[in-house]
Amino acid sequence: MNTRANTPAIVLLSGGLDSATVCAMALEKGHRVYALSFNYGQRHGIELIAAAKLAHVMGVEDHMIADLDLAKVTRSALTGQLEVPKHDSIEDMSGDIGDKIPDTYVPARNILFITIAAARAEAVGASDIYLGINALDYSGYPDCRPEFIEAMQHTLNVGTKQGVEGNPFTLHAPLIHMTKAEIIREGTRLGVDYSLTRSCYDPDENGLACGHCDSCLLRKRGFTRAGIPDPTQYA
Amino acid sequence: MNTRANTPAIVLLSGGLDSATVCAMALEKGHRVYALSFNYGQRHGIELIAAAKLAHVMGVEDHMIADLDLAKVTRSALTGQLEVPKHDSIEDMSGDIGDKIPDTYVPARNILFITIAAARAEAVGASDIYLGINALDYSGYPDCRPEFIEAMQHTLNVGTKQGVEGNPFTLHAPLIHMTKAEIIREGTRLGVDYSLTRSCYDPDENGLACGHCDSCLLRKRGFTRAGIPDPTQYA
Repeated sequence: MNTRANTPAIVLLSGGLDSATVCAMALEKGHRVYALSFNYGQRHGIELIAAAKLAHVMGVEDHMIADLDLAKVTRSALTGQLEVPKHDSIEDMSGDIGDKIPDTYVPARNILFITIAAARAEAVGASDIYLGINALDYSGYPDCRPEFIEAMQHTLNVGTKQGVEGNPFTLHAPLIHMTKAEIIREGTRLGVDYSLTRSCYDPDENGLACGHCDSCLLRKRGFTRAGIPDPTQYA
Repeated sequence: MNTRANTPAIVLLSGGLDSATVCAMALEKGHRVYALSFNYGQRHGIELIAAAKLAHVMGVEDHMIADLDLAKVTRSALTGQLEVPKHDSIEDMSGDIGDKIPDTYVPARNILFITIAAARAEAVGASDIYLGINALDYSGYPDCRPEFIEAMQHTLNVGTKQGVEGNPFTLHAPLIHMTKAEIIREGTRLGVDYSLTRSCYDPDENGLACGHCDSCLLRKRGFTRAGIPDPTQYA
């Protein structure tokens, strides 16, 4: 019997490939899933529609979209203040990964998202929070590294009522050491419909993926390496 | 010469007595102050008008009010889901302080506010963030304790670009070990006009302080003990 069965859990559901996979993993553990998405002024607002569809199709308990006015306080390619970098192929891009923090970095984004997830968790009585963070991200984004997850979990547990009153939060990042291909294989096994997910940082007006941003290139290669057909519609 | 002179700093300015005092302290150090307030669905929204007036009168570089939809994700007396506790006198209230976390606790509020302050700091090139947290608060709220401040600072410095690229954030909580009376004396020395500040958790429709919530009671006693006339208008 699964000890997690029927306990509530928060899943950060962006509408992308990784978070959809994590959502399927939390559901497989038997959690009642409270999915949480953020409208933070992202260019790729279409991912919120994807998140809503995924939440419905996957059968979560609840899906909430929280509004965050990040574009007002900060600057990033993802919120429209900088350009989204584009490349002809993943080889052109690979110099970027790990070398420096990309322009698509959104200051303090994951700290903010995880914190709101914890506030939501306190409200619904959940102590498990699932995150779609993975290794390909943490090479570039400081807030995707295991070291960060650990610091964040500690902060939640000293800085919230639930944490200090003996029902501490656990941050789960089950994809953290998986490659994109491994994630896609695992999600496929769990029945995730990847045609509903959106990864592109800069989709066109019809919502079609650009095929050339870092996120599209990593996604394409993931499907190729997993040996699974890519259901994504590219512009 | 002051080494902080002319460097930017973020000050979390709620419009209350404590944050106004901290703002004066940051200005005295010579910082260019970027004040930041939050519209998080608080009952006492009038504090935002107070914050705007204070920012103007005190001569800060910039004042931003960020919107946060906390009432949607969580529950607290301050966001209207629970009642604000009232007492006839501070003696009736003192049993509350330190014994348990009060209903006015807002889940993860300070983590969220400090995180957005860090995002704002990254945008304006600041590494100093000033907080009005003090001893009377940290007896009841987990996110007002020195242990929390330390954990939070570490999280920011492993989880943000600015932190990992060698320009780490410092969280300043200069009031943390001061009594309310000491804070009022220090602010008075620095010329803070406390008649512009608002502390009440549950003001009436004309914006007058209730005089009976924890915040009003602590404020009243602070002025009495400081031997300084209380300029607050009570209902």
